[in-house]
Amino acid sequence: MNLSIKKQGLLIVISGPSGAGKGTICKALIEKEKDLKLSISATTRQPRAGEVDGKNYFFKSEEEFKRMIEEDAFLEWAKVYDHYYGTPKEFVLKNLEEGNDVVLEIDIQGALKVKEKFPEGVFIFILPPSMEELRNRIKKRGTESEEEIIKRFKSAYEELNYVSKYNYVVINDDVDRAVEKIRAIIIAEKCRVDRNKDLYLKIREESV
Amino acid sequence: MNLSIKKQGLLIVISGPSGAGKGTICKALIEKEKDLKLSISATTRQPRAGEVDGKNYFFKSEEEFKRMIEEDAFLEWAKVYDHYYGTPKEFVLKNLEEGNDVVLEIDIQGALKVKEKFPEGVFIFILPPSMEELRNRIKKRGTESEEEIIKRFKSAYEELNYVSKYNYVVINDDVDRAVEKIRAIIIAEKCRVDRNKDLYLKIREESV
Repeated sequence: MNLSIKKQGLLIVISGPSGAGKGTICKALIEKEKDLKLSISATTRQPRAGEVDGKNYFFKSEEEFKRMIEEDAFLEWAKVYDHYYGTPKEFVLKNLEEGNDVVLEIDIQGALKVKEKFPEGVFIFILPPSMEELRNRIKKRGTESEEEIIKRFKSAYEELNYVSKYNYVVINDDVDRAVEKIRAIIIAEKCRVDRNKDLYLKIREESV
Repeated sequence: MNLSIKKQGLLIVISGPSGAGKGTICKALIEKEKDLKLSISATTRQPRAGEVDGKNYFFKSEEEFKRMIEEDAFLEWAKVYDHYYGTPKEFVLKNLEEGNDVVLEIDIQGALKVKEKFPEGVFIFILPPSMEELRNRIKKRGTESEEEIIKRFKSAYEELNYVSKYNYVVINDDVDRAVEKIRAIIIAEKCRVDRNKDLYLKIREESV
């Protein structure tokens, strides 16, 4: 008897404060684990030079986006300044059903909304190695005013309160090390008893 | 600031029905991860040729063993036929306090007793690849009568019911693969948010 049952994939949510380095980690993770599917966001903002529809984003008109909201087609969505951003359900659910693991890189507010709809996801909080380092990283982006930097830093600091809503915390002191931890988390989660009820039933049913 | 706080070690309980291969897996795991400490059982049975006190077992007189029971010096103990077997608390707790991870290879009844006293342990259930394979493995030991084999197999089958009390289930279809899964589980468990409350508090306290 073959016990490798076709199972639903895992939704792996990589989240954390701005400046923690979740983007870099996700990129390195996807490069190591070619089978992982990266969830693609939808947005109403204009494509920037080089951005490809269906690869970087699903580019939508405001009308289309609002229709999707009405149709409950998002795992989460938000309006940031003048533009809408959201995580289309279809891509995620279809891949999970097919047994693919899906990675979702998302800010903390978004992750908490996803958790409401999809509590069986694996929620990983990326921490900067220190608050000092976080401040340096926000500064280094260099696109913001001093005032904006302080505001972003304060908001990142406040967001640390939400770590308790997550399953795992990974310190981004070294990208490779952080990626190895996330790969281990994925392997371990697939071994969790509560994700293997079918396996247990199947082995029990085997004629003895 | 250094965020690598000295933390208590993990108690990793490797358990499962007789014939699942937990002994082989533990041996291979310890060889890969030299820093893991293997818990040593105490017993009142006589040492066999080549067995060393304090390495294979702590050999105790019945009087000593009973005194240890009275002193609550065991995480669990049992009497099997004429001999006592038990897991001395001291070795396990001392190593955990020092930040070492401790591996405990134990049968299912024992693991359930350990869980009562130490629910924060990591409980891993080793499954044979199939019930047929389990029967073959029990047979291959060749030391038991046909009747004894059927009895052991039935008992192993009944014991599968207890998998739900564990955190993880690992199929022993290949020893190396099973060991890799256990290593991943150890890494992942160290990243669990509920094992990192100190870290979170420390980063929050950092002067900003």
